[in-house]
Amino acid sequence: MTDAVTQLTRELIAIPSVTPDDGAGQAPLRDRLAPLGFQLEDMSEGNVANLYARYGNQGPVVAFAGHTDVVPTGAEEDWTHPPFSPTASGAYLYGRGAADMKGSLAAFTVAVERFLARHPEPQGSIALLITGDEEGPAVHGTPVMVRRLAERDEMPDYCLVGEPSCSERLGDTVKNGRRGSLTGEMVVLGTQGHVAYPHKADNPVHRALPALQELVETEWDAGNAYFPPTSFQIPNVRAGTGAHNVIPGTLDVQFNFRYSTERTKDDLKAQVHEILDRHGLRYDLHWHENGDPFLTEPGPLVNALTESIRAATGVDTHLSTAGGTSDGRFIAPHGVQVAEFGPLNDTIHQVDERVAMEDLERLAEIYEGVLERLLTET
Amino acid sequence: MTDAVTQLTRELIAIPSVTPDDGAGQAPLRDRLAPLGFQLEDMSEGNVANLYARYGNQGPVVAFAGHTDVVPTGAEEDWTHPPFSPTASGAYLYGRGAADMKGSLAAFTVAVERFLARHPEPQGSIALLITGDEEGPAVHGTPVMVRRLAERDEMPDYCLVGEPSCSERLGDTVKNGRRGSLTGEMVVLGTQGHVAYPHKADNPVHRALPALQELVETEWDAGNAYFPPTSFQIPNVRAGTGAHNVIPGTLDVQFNFRYSTERTKDDLKAQVHEILDRHGLRYDLHWHENGDPFLTEPGPLVNALTESIRAATGVDTHLSTAGGTSDGRFIAPHGVQVAEFGPLNDTIHQVDERVAMEDLERLAEIYEGVLERLLTET
Ligand SMILES: [Zn+2]
Ligand SMILES: [Zn+2]
Repeated sequence: MTDAVTQLTRELIAIPSVTPDDGAGQAPLRDRLAPLGFQLEDMSEGNVANLYARYGNQGPVVAFAGHTDVVPTGAEEDWTHPPFSPTASGAYLYGRGAADMKGSLAAFTVAVERFLARHPEPQGSIALLITGDEEGPAVHGTPVMVRRLAERDEMPDYCLVGEPSCSERLGDTVKNGRRGSLTGEMVVLGTQGHVAYPHKADNPVHRALPALQELVETEWDAGNAYFPPTSFQIPNVRAGTGAHNVIPGTLDVQFNFRYSTERTKDDLKAQVHEILDRHGLRYDLHWHENGDPFLTEPGPLVNALTESIRAATGVDTHLSTAGGTSDGRFIAPHGVQVAEFGPLNDTIHQVDERVAMEDLERLAEIYEGVLERLLTET
Repeated sequence: MTDAVTQLTRELIAIPSVTPDDGAGQAPLRDRLAPLGFQLEDMSEGNVANLYARYGNQGPVVAFAGHTDVVPTGAEEDWTHPPFSPTASGAYLYGRGAADMKGSLAAFTVAVERFLARHPEPQGSIALLITGDEEGPAVHGTPVMVRRLAERDEMPDYCLVGEPSCSERLGDTVKNGRRGSLTGEMVVLGTQGHVAYPHKADNPVHRALPALQELVETEWDAGNAYFPPTSFQIPNVRAGTGAHNVIPGTLDVQFNFRYSTERTKDDLKAQVHEILDRHGLRYDLHWHENGDPFLTEPGPLVNALTESIRAATGVDTHLSTAGGTSDGRFIAPHGVQVAEFGPLNDTIHQVDERVAMEDLERLAEIYEGVLERLLTET
């Protein structure tokens, strides 16, 4: 077995590219892609390095989206091996970013090298969208690149996102969509007073309870074949000064929807307002739109992935839309087929993040299989 | 019209006896009571000055309970006149403590002087329980004096509390009882998690809503002839770290009962636990008992007050148990008839606290009338 992917992963881990990455973490990729004939374009914005690379001029365009930034390490002394000194131990390669997602970047790069060696003139193009700000606020990363590509009508047809998607073994999960996320910041208005004179006050906690209970009990949808039912959670509530004799004048409630493609943010908002208004609440409510849901139904990209996974690992893949948001939310709205596939996510964002070296090599086989299936006549 | 009460009130206001009073605020009272033949006893405890004064050895004992401490002034520059420089302006005497309750202390002292001048051998005794800590935590004040008097079997029969009780005009309100106060500090236990994986978490906010709503909607009692219905309020709630993607692991809820004599703290607690348990909540709950309710039904003390008020002012008095707690809660449980009567409470604890000088003089007439009715053969 060759360890080409492990070698490149080591090179990438050794660069401490904590969010946002200023470009240092992308240098090894530029050095490997340029000799292959990729056109490299710096799409950096602010303090965030963004690299766009493209090989070929015709469609369809198969893109890989990934990030070189990593989350902070926490206390380095808690790590068995220093987080930016990639260390092989047993079957695993340890280091910050090993699984999220320097291993995926290395695997795709090696896959491209092998694929182009066999198919120097593929029936389509290959693109990479590499950002240095996925783990941070993400405003200067993928959204910037997507906007520029949209402006020049150069959106890819297929986009493979290298996020670690598997849970128990390599190949078990492809994410073919993500739920949307919508947050409401509400202040319920009442009238402050003394608990000894409740008739002179209007307790916003009391007033809000029936409305909050209805929000919690509402079935927003039943989900669908790809999405679990839309969920509503109250992560934060706050009222009162701490004094036991003061009826508070306001109640702060923050709630969050994770919603399926059965709903839109606008009809969720409308339904929330209907409930609050029907209960006669006085309130201020501000919305934060964290990302629309997206879904890529089985088709060329998903099928290429599941077939390549089965060929490389023998595993039957499960399609999932579970979990948090990813940069796929910025790409999918442009009509791009988006699917996420990468290594196990069991140690990401943790101390002693690691990836199985065998999985890294298999991952390159799978990515190469996807290019093969989408960009060659079979 | 003599202004004897206003004069003594001025003397008392001029001493800045912010809680706790170390005794300086009580010196003018000692100086007036000793020459009358009162036996003075220092019942101070910790940093709190407590003065017990008694005239006579036989029963019944008519006591006056009051406090020389005052609440802080806030920013002195917000006052029209300096808070500890008693200033007459128009019909009013201004200064911190004018209404709460140095005016009452002065009025009772002058009333006693006049009463004893006419009845040097009354048919009973007169006592004063003067504390320097009513506005503070109150643990070293009235409770200490009451405990000592109980130990030597010297509890008064009647106790007039000089708290400002009137709202629109002098005489309109006598407080013949107070509601009890009971506070619950509850932590509802859940399981922290990520909003993207709600099935792995257990949101204590969601779980608590139906129980809280039942607590808010419950009719704890219908009140009675003297008490409004028991009220339940949630002054404080708190859950979450502020992050919109974390389901909180705990919810803090603080609630407070103001309860009538139809309930006891023990059966309120039992009913709360029954509701929480029936809703299947996991919780920790600690109780703070702030005072039992008490009631003095019309009888010698209340009648002496209402008759004296009518004689001095022509006003028909309203009996009330509304408002916060007072030191009466410590005295009434010993079987003492307790009633509160003092000047208007419209400016207490505020900037520019004031009392009508005319009311001060009338208040002394009323207090003298009470002594007359309870301690002389009529
Ligand atoms: Zn990632
Ligand atoms: Zn007071």
